[in-house]
Amino acid sequence: MSRIEDKLAELGETLPDAPAPAANYAPYVVTGQTVYVSGQISQGPQGNLLGKLGETATIEDGAAAARACALSILAQVKAAAGGDLDRLARVVKLTGFVNSTSGFTDQPKVINGASDFLVEVLGDKGRHARSAVSAASLPLGVMVEIEAIVELS
Amino acid sequence: MSRIEDKLAELGETLPDAPAPAANYAPYVVTGQTVYVSGQISQGPQGNLLGKLGETATIEDGAAAARACALSILAQVKAAAGGDLDRLARVVKLTGFVNSTSGFTDQPKVINGASDFLVEVLGDKGRHARSAVSAASLPLGVMVEIEAIVELS
Amino acid sequence: MSRIEDKLAELGETLPDAPAPAANYAPYVVTGQTVYVSGQISQGPQGNLLGKLGETATIEDGAAAARACALSILAQVKAAAGGDLDRLARVVKLTGFVNSTSGFTDQPKVINGASDFLVEVLGDKGRHARSAVSAASLPLGVMVEIEAIVELS
Repeated sequence: MSRIEDKLAELGETLPDAPAPAANYAPYVVTGQTVYVSGQISQGPQGNLLGKLGETATIEDGAAAARACALSILAQVKAAAGGDLDRLARVVKLTGFVNSTSGFTDQPKVINGASDFLVEVLGDKGRHARSAVSAASLPLGVMVEIEAIVELS
Repeated sequence: MSRIEDKLAELGETLPDAPAPAANYAPYVVTGQTVYVSGQISQGPQGNLLGKLGETATIEDGAAAARACALSILAQVKAAAGGDLDRLARVVKLTGFVNSTSGFTDQPKVINGASDFLVEVLGDKGRHARSAVSAASLPLGVMVEIEAIVELS
Repeated sequence: MSRIEDKLAELGETLPDAPAPAANYAPYVVTGQTVYVSGQISQGPQGNLLGKLGETATIEDGAAAARACALSILAQVKAAAGGDLDRLARVVKLTGFVNSTSGFTDQPKVINGASDFLVEVLGDKGRHARSAVSAASLPLGVMVEIEAIVELS
């Protein structure tokens, strides 16, 4: 098991299987050292994490959903790295989409669920550029979708 | 005519002229082998493909609009490649924005209109990473806007 | 002072301090010659530029907010370039998110506030690929958020 997976275990997390894409596209594309990870929708062991911020989901719900997206991103990066997650050199960029009402203004607190988790697991390698915005809606009604650009060593 | 354009012809499609940007920006920027294609709004020979998913447009309408965006992306890539579309080496990433109501949850089925078309035309070179989300609204009221990252050989 | 900052001064603008990120992420990440600038929310000397297009903000308000985002992007690029803004070689890509109602269709005119400004300040180096879409809402209720990919020399 990799050092990064050891750290995940310490935090009580195990990597899920890399989620299959919902359609005719790839879960990630590697070009040079760069991995483009497809948008990961919020899902946990019990299924999709559904809800709309500002209506049916709290900021805490949303942050937990964002953390779940980050875990799926790590699972995709492990697959992209041929099974060795320790080849992850840097999380370059996250774009986080929050399923919310038109009056919701705490997108950063929601996406922090992913950002804090990545820094906790990866240290400085996990510190990334980021955008956090609301989407009018998201696939299947999930709370959060996050895509990533990651560098491998 | 390039092999990719032959394949388009087989499918009954011809590349449109690369749409001009709506304002003071470039339709694409090439850096190294990478082409960043500006967001292409859904438009066809008869004009803009307007509508809102979940309200005035069906999933089939939306998928056709997404396919039209993909055709515009290929037209931009041809221009970026100095007129030789066969220099397209790989579609790396699409980000698809769907103009929808807040309750719409079939973004993936809409953006499949673009993804399926690119794989049909390009084979494995067309298989990309992707995000599909809803926008509260889109320029001019179009159904779909898709941006792309593409690699040239 | 750099030539780019001279040009800003001519236009009556001075670079703000590079805004600190709102949470556990980086304001930018540099990889090779490429800078990924985190989404910059619209803010001016008097604070955040709040409002929703199609409801409480005009296109002119929105364009001014987009211009403010572009100024923050330049401030981040200066920091990323070790203080020398003249190392900016090319603005590659902007993604502009407009806080709007579901019926608003002038996203391009809003984001032009940033695009026109960058071309005015930087000339051809400021001409970029771009997407402009509506977000259901944005952090703190700001009018505009823009992220950027920029190349350094």
